[in-house]
Amino acid sequence: MKEQWRGFRGTKWQDEVDVRDFIQNNYTPYDGDESFLADATDATDQLWGELQRLQKEERAKNGVLDMETEVVSSLTSYGPGYISEALKDLEQVVGLQTDKPLKRAFMPYGGIRMSEEACTTYGYQPSEKLHEIFTKYHKTHNDAVFSAYTPEMRLARRNKIVTGLPDTYGRGRIVGDYRRVALYGIDFLIREKEKDLAYCGDGTMTDDIIRQREEIADQIKALKGMKEMAASYGYDISGPATNAKEAVQWLYFGYLAAIKTQNGAAMSVGRISTFLDIYFERDLREGVLTEAEAQEIIDHMTMKFRMVKFARIPSYNQLFSGDPVWATLDVGGLGMDGRSMVTKTCFRFLHTLENMGPSPEPNLTVLYSSRLPETFKKYAAKVSIDTSSVQYENDDVMRVEWGDDYAVCCCVSATQTGKEMQFFGARANLAKCLLYAINGGVDEKSKVQVGPEYKPITSEILDYDEVMHKYDIMMDWLAGLYVNILNLIQYFHDKYYYEASQMALIDTDVRRTFATGIAGFSHVVDSLCAIKYATVKTIRDEDGIVVDYEVEGDFPRYGNDDDRADEIAVWLLKEFMNKIRKHHTYRDSEPTTSILTITSNVVYGKATGALPDGRKAGEPLAPGANPSYGAEQNGLLASLNSVAKLPYEYALDGISNTQTMNPSALGHDAQERMDNLVHVLDGYFDQGAHHLNVNVFGIEKLMDAMEHPEKEEYANFTIRVSGYAVKFIDLTREQQLDVISRTCHDRL
Amino acid sequence: MKEQWRGFRGTKWQDEVDVRDFIQNNYTPYDGDESFLADATDATDQLWGELQRLQKEERAKNGVLDMETEVVSSLTSYGPGYISEALKDLEQVVGLQTDKPLKRAFMPYGGIRMSEEACTTYGYQPSEKLHEIFTKYHKTHNDAVFSAYTPEMRLARRNKIVTGLPDTYGRGRIVGDYRRVALYGIDFLIREKEKDLAYCGDGTMTDDIIRQREEIADQIKALKGMKEMAASYGYDISGPATNAKEAVQWLYFGYLAAIKTQNGAAMSVGRISTFLDIYFERDLREGVLTEAEAQEIIDHMTMKFRMVKFARIPSYNQLFSGDPVWATLDVGGLGMDGRSMVTKTCFRFLHTLENMGPSPEPNLTVLYSSRLPETFKKYAAKVSIDTSSVQYENDDVMRVEWGDDYAVCCCVSATQTGKEMQFFGARANLAKCLLYAINGGVDEKSKVQVGPEYKPITSEILDYDEVMHKYDIMMDWLAGLYVNILNLIQYFHDKYYYEASQMALIDTDVRRTFATGIAGFSHVVDSLCAIKYATVKTIRDEDGIVVDYEVEGDFPRYGNDDDRADEIAVWLLKEFMNKIRKHHTYRDSEPTTSILTITSNVVYGKATGALPDGRKAGEPLAPGANPSYGAEQNGLLASLNSVAKLPYEYALDGISNTQTMNPSALGHDAQERMDNLVHVLDGYFDQGAHHLNVNVFGIEKLMDAMEHPEKEEYANFTIRVSGYAVKFIDLTREQQLDVISRTCHDRL
Repeated sequence: MKEQWRGFRGTKWQDEVDVRDFIQNNYTPYDGDESFLADATDATDQLWGELQRLQKEERAKNGVLDMETEVVSSLTSYGPGYISEALKDLEQVVGLQTDKPLKRAFMPYGGIRMSEEACTTYGYQPSEKLHEIFTKYHKTHNDAVFSAYTPEMRLARRNKIVTGLPDTYGRGRIVGDYRRVALYGIDFLIREKEKDLAYCGDGTMTDDIIRQREEIADQIKALKGMKEMAASYGYDISGPATNAKEAVQWLYFGYLAAIKTQNGAAMSVGRISTFLDIYFERDLREGVLTEAEAQEIIDHMTMKFRMVKFARIPSYNQLFSGDPVWATLDVGGLGMDGRSMVTKTCFRFLHTLENMGPSPEPNLTVLYSSRLPETFKKYAAKVSIDTSSVQYENDDVMRVEWGDDYAVCCCVSATQTGKEMQFFGARANLAKCLLYAINGGVDEKSKVQVGPEYKPITSEILDYDEVMHKYDIMMDWLAGLYVNILNLIQYFHDKYYYEASQMALIDTDVRRTFATGIAGFSHVVDSLCAIKYATVKTIRDEDGIVVDYEVEGDFPRYGNDDDRADEIAVWLLKEFMNKIRKHHTYRDSEPTTSILTITSNVVYGKATGALPDGRKAGEPLAPGANPSYGAEQNGLLASLNSVAKLPYEYALDGISNTQTMNPSALGHDAQERMDNLVHVLDGYFDQGAHHLNVNVFGIEKLMDAMEHPEKEEYANFTIRVSGYAVKFIDLTREQQLDVISRTCHDRL
Repeated sequence: MKEQWRGFRGTKWQDEVDVRDFIQNNYTPYDGDESFLADATDATDQLWGELQRLQKEERAKNGVLDMETEVVSSLTSYGPGYISEALKDLEQVVGLQTDKPLKRAFMPYGGIRMSEEACTTYGYQPSEKLHEIFTKYHKTHNDAVFSAYTPEMRLARRNKIVTGLPDTYGRGRIVGDYRRVALYGIDFLIREKEKDLAYCGDGTMTDDIIRQREEIADQIKALKGMKEMAASYGYDISGPATNAKEAVQWLYFGYLAAIKTQNGAAMSVGRISTFLDIYFERDLREGVLTEAEAQEIIDHMTMKFRMVKFARIPSYNQLFSGDPVWATLDVGGLGMDGRSMVTKTCFRFLHTLENMGPSPEPNLTVLYSSRLPETFKKYAAKVSIDTSSVQYENDDVMRVEWGDDYAVCCCVSATQTGKEMQFFGARANLAKCLLYAINGGVDEKSKVQVGPEYKPITSEILDYDEVMHKYDIMMDWLAGLYVNILNLIQYFHDKYYYEASQMALIDTDVRRTFATGIAGFSHVVDSLCAIKYATVKTIRDEDGIVVDYEVEGDFPRYGNDDDRADEIAVWLLKEFMNKIRKHHTYRDSEPTTSILTITSNVVYGKATGALPDGRKAGEPLAPGANPSYGAEQNGLLASLNSVAKLPYEYALDGISNTQTMNPSALGHDAQERMDNLVHVLDGYFDQGAHHLNVNVFGIEKLMDAMEHPEKEEYANFTIRVSGYAVKFIDLTREQQLDVISRTCHDRL
């Protein structure tokens, strides 16, 4: 047994990479309360103060503090960087993406045009030399995808029936098992990958085997690069970490490798707290660490996650507003053996929101079960209420699918850590698809024939059966087109922007999921309800295209625990998923879907005409699986009950639900609010619901923050939107208004 | 009908690309003699004089006149270049690979190390900037291949049981249909490729379809680049050529695009003479061109083919000695309708060897049939006898396989022009494989276990049945390994060094062959004969490895028209081909094989131990399908009869045979020699033989040239080696000695 592993139990994980086995053999469940936690140290205060100053400066400079134009980001393209040269000795965890804090790297492999537009948007002049390299010598992902798109694909993309596609930047959503760096050190990991290369294929060189061999070779190269990167900071990570501080540092270097080489929308950290806790426990046991020191290390690591930045373009920022990176970090959850996996370090990560205030990143996620220790549930609820910076995902439904070592790789999408990767696939606008069904494939906004030229509906009053039939065949078309667009994107991403650093920390024999997504979910459900239960009249333009609807009579709506609507919701999800499943998927990946729109609901809504449910043209769609604005008439619990009916097995990529409750709705004092939130969560998740974003504040606060963003109290005012958190003042006014118009529950 | 097509017949070729249909409808067979031919013009003499001066200078500078280090070769990376600024108005056909004559371009996509080694070998300093680009940003074919090779593959390569693999440079052997540029102009070709892109796939994006879509997009980009390249010389090639001079110029631009972007070993020109003749005939008919002008255009085009150069490394030059590029150019042949396809322009191309003297390039190839016009056969024989610069391939056997519009893409390998491409695959050393069979997979030179650890032969005397059994299973192993090495190479070549310019001039729905090759053929046959018919004793080293053989008694040898040996030869070819066919081949290409070693027989021989046929360790192997040196005891015709027995259908990639005859063996005077050579060729090819290189000179001339290379008469002294021609004085002394030791037939 290696000296660095002193005191650790178990043997399986020592022979080959098996972090789960290490965790299960060594972690110490904690069911006490938060009273052990330590406040921020002076060093933390100083560093966080400096970082806040930089963030303020960044906001003053239109959201970008500094930007690289001459250096292509790679593992080793920069020497070491620190939050502040003056304070660098205070940093317990070191490592920046570039040479300066908050400076955004130049990452052209996804698309040189995007990278250059990001520069010019913020007043930087892109390098001519790099332009030449990435136009003359090296094709980018973006160039390749657009050269191969069919006209139909371009049209569907331009008309935004499929949208948010990762065809100009990194696809993200791959969580390397960064813990491996700490537990094994790089040399062990290289040896394991060398073994994999030796065992890759029986000698018959099919395309698949050749591709895999090249990928493993690239991974080994990346591992060597990580060692070099760490060495520039004075660390030798070839062997395992010897203590908690090193474990945190080694793990962070693994993550740093990812964010230096990939600019995916979501660059999640993973499920690290219980793993790291084993090192903290050993150090505490050995008497070489105090709680204050432990918290300081976690605070400093968290600070690093708060600093992750990518250079983005305006159209990207419209989709994913507030500069998010989805550095999602999961705490809590239960083991397959029924033990709670909550440790003191789960508390410590939540505590960073108190020591350094609310923050959108890292995207703190509680893997929830009503069987978690009450103390932990209450502490999470308390932090949630105070900061609106926490989301909850149902560990009881996810554990069945993914075991007890999965992590959330974006907002709501789980992947088994180190054993799985996802091909991220944005989403299809099913609301627009319904309009195509009615208009025979003609886009209601551009008036262009985008979908197949099926016979449109010509009647004045919409007939439910006719609409359902036409919707069925139009959705068939959309599902096929969508999957094939993604096949093409994923192929070229692997070819031109392969995630060698992340895949180096994932098993070679990796499980691949093929993520699709749904936008406009609630509007389709409500529209179909209106057509079925009320009378929907079509209003046509001069060319006979239906551009608006008049609804007479009442109809049930999704979000009220009314089975008439909720059954249609379940049908819609299952039908879409089954249609997706029909098709060939890249690398025989397993298709999944999500009901998740992030903040793209605003952009998607802008591109979508009026709907039979009464939503006007251009208005935002409801986000994720949320009921439509104003549809919820029976309080929070009825709304939650509707969403909870959606079967997770048909949306394994996640079902996002975001709710805002007035503090008063939760109770009269902090204790009552905390208890009530726990009850709400227990009840919701025990029904099999998947996800909940919890915001606790009143509309008044939002209105005030919108009008007075300069107030100090709003500097870090964080809210949960669909699947992630943002600083409210970083949203566009349009999105702020959208958030304000969402239902704020005043009663349970 | 376009104005440029005035006077042309036929309609099918006007609607879509169909150069064969154009040729068949429009060519004028010529069965007259050579008396119409014109001498070199003064302009030709001046330009050729200048080029000879440059060639002399090149030889004085160790074989490289100038080399690029700062610019990556592409269609448009240079402005126009001329043989001489002073004489540039004399050039009827313009276009250089770089900005200066005989200057070698920098082509790193195949492998940056090779490109840089080529520079340093000749005293040039490679660019640091380009080094950075092709190591940090852009992976090369060579890097990818070596990252994915298995240890077994590396070992087999290092021990030279498979060798000459195109894993450090372009694979070559793809002949674009350069005639298309002349007949259709670029815009038409772009439109056709755009149609192909539109029809590519039914929307289901499998990897194959995605790859193809990207390739078509790259081809379209290349076509646009060709227009730009031509424009820099003042030519607009968007439309068809209007006359013979333009047709030649347009066609050459198509070829120039290929040699600016690819450094394949073989970069053949194709079958262009009968096509171009249609333009010459029209101009002559219209009275706008004289024969002298026609010949001048052909001479100047040929001069360009004589100037093609690539930067090579020493190990490459050892394999392919004498700086060849296989700018193979075919004349003659019959049509499917039985008409001779010999035209005046076939004569004109042969006549370049008289107007400008002998030359290894273009690699002039007569597609032979005894049914060709006697006048043409005799003229070819005359030029052959005078220059030793012509090879013959049997049109009667190739036409059955490839129709009447194929071209030779290297030495002896036919591909249908514009409809087919070949994955070039070097060769497997079957002689060494026999030694592995005897030694249980241990290499007789390195003593390393390279092949599988089969039971070695332990007896003192070799038993034929035992050897045959062991050879069978060892050849099985070698065939599998070899095919899979090639699968890997071809995959990465497509990925990192795709031939967009050449493939742009080939049908999108392309037929792909997968070429393999055999080295050591005659030695295996003779060795097996020795084991079967004589007594072969093994001589072992201290470890029991067989390192030499003692043969007692006589045995039949291949090359004497003795069926005992020749049947084993047929068996060996069929067996190897059948073993190759067992395996998966890249892109479902059709496996073929060749018996062709080029000059690599010397290097292969050096790496191969002693053989049971009496050949000593390290001695050169016999080249191609040639009988072993000294084996031929019954004269030229008996030797030819042996080779003619090999079935072409099992070696569709070609069967190379090189023979040298003393002028006196052919006859007492020029007329008799010419007549006799025609008789020899008729007799040989009527038996179904595939190929013959004809050298007519005595050993004394070779000896004198080796000792006195400075003599003016040897400056362009060209000899045919296995599948191509070289200037004798450009060979290494080792290879000169090899050539001298080959059989020179003194009798028929």
